[in-house]
Amino acid sequence: MAQKYTTREEDYSKWYNEIVQRADLAEDSGVRGCMVIKPYGYAIWEKMRDILDAKFKETGHSNAYFPIFIPKSLFEAEEKNAEGFAKECAVVTHHRLIDDPDNKGKLIVDPKAKLTEELIVRPTSEAIIWSTYKKWIQSYRDLPILINQWANVVRWEMRTRIFLRTAEFLWQEGHTAHQTKAEALAETELMNNVYAEFAEKSMAMPVIKGEKSDSERFAGADATYTIEAMMQDGKALQAGTSHFLGQNFAKAFDVKFADKEGKQEYVWATSWGVSTRLMGALIMTHSDDEGLVLPPAIAPIQVVAIPIYKKDEDLAAITEKIDELSAKLKAKGISFKFDDDDNRRPGWKFAEYEAKGVPVRLAMGMRDLENGNIEVARRDNKTKEVLPFDGVDAHIESLLEDIQSNLYNRALEFRKNNIRPIDSYDEFKVKIESEGGFFLAHWDGTEETEKQIKEETKATIRCIPFDREEETGECIVTGKPSAGRVIFAKAY
Amino acid sequence: MAQKYTTREEDYSKWYNEIVQRADLAEDSGVRGCMVIKPYGYAIWEKMRDILDAKFKETGHSNAYFPIFIPKSLFEAEEKNAEGFAKECAVVTHHRLIDDPDNKGKLIVDPKAKLTEELIVRPTSEAIIWSTYKKWIQSYRDLPILINQWANVVRWEMRTRIFLRTAEFLWQEGHTAHQTKAEALAETELMNNVYAEFAEKSMAMPVIKGEKSDSERFAGADATYTIEAMMQDGKALQAGTSHFLGQNFAKAFDVKFADKEGKQEYVWATSWGVSTRLMGALIMTHSDDEGLVLPPAIAPIQVVAIPIYKKDEDLAAITEKIDELSAKLKAKGISFKFDDDDNRRPGWKFAEYEAKGVPVRLAMGMRDLENGNIEVARRDNKTKEVLPFDGVDAHIESLLEDIQSNLYNRALEFRKNNIRPIDSYDEFKVKIESEGGFFLAHWDGTEETEKQIKEETKATIRCIPFDREEETGECIVTGKPSAGRVIFAKAY
Repeated sequence: MAQKYTTREEDYSKWYNEIVQRADLAEDSGVRGCMVIKPYGYAIWEKMRDILDAKFKETGHSNAYFPIFIPKSLFEAEEKNAEGFAKECAVVTHHRLIDDPDNKGKLIVDPKAKLTEELIVRPTSEAIIWSTYKKWIQSYRDLPILINQWANVVRWEMRTRIFLRTAEFLWQEGHTAHQTKAEALAETELMNNVYAEFAEKSMAMPVIKGEKSDSERFAGADATYTIEAMMQDGKALQAGTSHFLGQNFAKAFDVKFADKEGKQEYVWATSWGVSTRLMGALIMTHSDDEGLVLPPAIAPIQVVAIPIYKKDEDLAAITEKIDELSAKLKAKGISFKFDDDDNRRPGWKFAEYEAKGVPVRLAMGMRDLENGNIEVARRDNKTKEVLPFDGVDAHIESLLEDIQSNLYNRALEFRKNNIRPIDSYDEFKVKIESEGGFFLAHWDGTEETEKQIKEETKATIRCIPFDREEETGECIVTGKPSAGRVIFAKAY
Repeated sequence: MAQKYTTREEDYSKWYNEIVQRADLAEDSGVRGCMVIKPYGYAIWEKMRDILDAKFKETGHSNAYFPIFIPKSLFEAEEKNAEGFAKECAVVTHHRLIDDPDNKGKLIVDPKAKLTEELIVRPTSEAIIWSTYKKWIQSYRDLPILINQWANVVRWEMRTRIFLRTAEFLWQEGHTAHQTKAEALAETELMNNVYAEFAEKSMAMPVIKGEKSDSERFAGADATYTIEAMMQDGKALQAGTSHFLGQNFAKAFDVKFADKEGKQEYVWATSWGVSTRLMGALIMTHSDDEGLVLPPAIAPIQVVAIPIYKKDEDLAAITEKIDELSAKLKAKGISFKFDDDDNRRPGWKFAEYEAKGVPVRLAMGMRDLENGNIEVARRDNKTKEVLPFDGVDAHIESLLEDIQSNLYNRALEFRKNNIRPIDSYDEFKVKIESEGGFFLAHWDGTEETEKQIKEETKATIRCIPFDREEETGECIVTGKPSAGRVIFAKAY
């Protein structure tokens, strides 16, 4: 069992794949680019989903569900959006299989069952939703519409990577309709803030809020806000985006409303989403060479207890004591597991829950029991201590809070150490390779320069940070005037 | 606004469609056979989903997620299953769109982006899941696997009907793997019981548990257990099914395990599911000519309060009082809405919440306030009374329980009045048309007889009830011996 695992130092990408496997989160399916999300991975996604869902509802949104298929004529209506996704669309063309006449027991697509109009498997739902909103919106009284949907989407990506870029993924997509530009912009910002708060408070993952440059904007949007996180290899991961869609979809689908004066106006729109990609962000923000590290707020199991015993009567005595603690922890809303599986040895279990990132691991043997003690180990910094059993429930409660904030602070510290202003393009080209991380650089605001930097360094503009300092300067490439620094980094 | 609605008596089918619309539950989308589930309808589905999900977890199951696409070669592996669904498969054949050279701004399917193997949009997931389980199962230690998935599925039905039969629908599908036949059969029964309990306790919908006849069995199963409910027009609705799959999928995908003696055995399987079809069952079990009627256990809003006022200061006084009540109800876990929308009159609101099936509606005017009273109306039997405000929270709590059991008892009473033994086929043929309902009849156990009855009367065998009385007899059609009565009915 003493398998040798890859360290982050050795091969970050291989380390990532091994963590996914060791923590039993997901695996590649037999279907090109599609993943199977395994129970433990799905349990983490459920925790994230439930927290986000509650935040959406608190901010006035309701869930609904729209068809997975988008008829081609609707899909192509908003041209920029269609153009942006056309290259990666799964297309349904037929609706029946029949027996293969040449091959008993096999099936072929029935050529007679060709659809008169092809159906696109949704890569995003603006088109189908705005063709529906057209039916729902007549007057200002019908606005705002604040709807979210939890769904699967399909984008036929050429290179896939588990959680980070898969052909099918799970996500939520909010789609809202408003009377005014100001209201839609406020919604765009609100939801970007909801994502940021979720990332920082629940995932313990610091993010930088900002706006995307024109070339990185969502296809069909007038502005895209983003939250950008730094992974442990210094690369950026776009963790969530919120789009101000202007009146683009309203115009494509002719969605107008009568305002209070009876005048017909096009409706203003936003859309916003996060996906199972967050699972990848989670892994790469906190995990270490021993396995996954989970922030308590989204850990399916927050505390695991492992009995150490030889005789059945010892197990019975330990179980009685642990049951006491279990009741107290559950009353505090802490999710607790007692692993008394007789088929596995304690050492195997220790490694298993370490690999799965369970924040707190307890162990109790007969010596502990006799001395009124219990061993408490924390996953984040791998320290452990033997503590009096009495009152340990309160200790664990504060320990979980401590782990949550420690993980956040650790990630924030890491980001601080790996984000730096840079004023020379030559230096930038060297350091993006040798050191990585985020670079705050002046940029002349043109797509050409952005493209040149991308081609020469693989770094892209992650965002124009909302909270950047007021500082004019000169573009590191062209020397032309710049209104302020933007963040460059290589990205997932 | 005094729109005339269709009554159940006049046209049951039209009434159903109008309820879906009046309660704002769902609508047909522009996409053939696919529906849009609107926020209020989705909120009911969420309530049902959350209750079921908790029951699945209590019974030891975990959620996971498997790909939406099934490569044709996997799909056709289990022949009976493939044959059963082949006629209604949406098939993805291409993965890219390109600009239409003849039509600026339009897109066409790129003929160069043809998939080497077609992908079936899952109509059910046994094939993709068992091809995955093959990788997960080596030894008896890997068993049982108890997994559920919440997902969308697509079946290209010829005739669609909102919620009841749609091309795309939402559902859950459990897929379990076991060492022994007995264990798999026990799981099949357990999950059918979970469905029955959910239907009766949460949906207040009485069901009959039983086994399907061979011809009504799930494609690929050795046995299908079902819960059958009676709708208000006397027709049956299959509300959930649980399948004992034997070793069929294990053999199709070569999934074996080493037992404790090291012998290789095929794995035993079950699968079970309920879908958004339950929304249709819910509507047709309880609703009346005034709109939807919801059992409190699955009502997104259990109590609504409507203020009746002229002056702003009256509204303020009423609001203060209602806020008091709101806090008390929320503390009891009762979902409460105060509708103080100034744009709508009380009469409009009364009709609106009646149409939406909110179980308890409160109203308070200045007279009530002065007298320390509040009006309490129940949706199920449309009675109302003026009660002292003090202590009304406790009254409402017991009222909700009362409504829940009243709805169940009413539906049970209706079913009792519409289920009858029948011993003459001539009489059966007349009564299935004139009276409808469920008929308990002797049947010789052959597919031929079943088929003949279906062709001549449109009635099918809904199930062989588990709790049927021990009674041998003669088939109503052929006079051949019968082991007991089975249920015949027309069905949705």
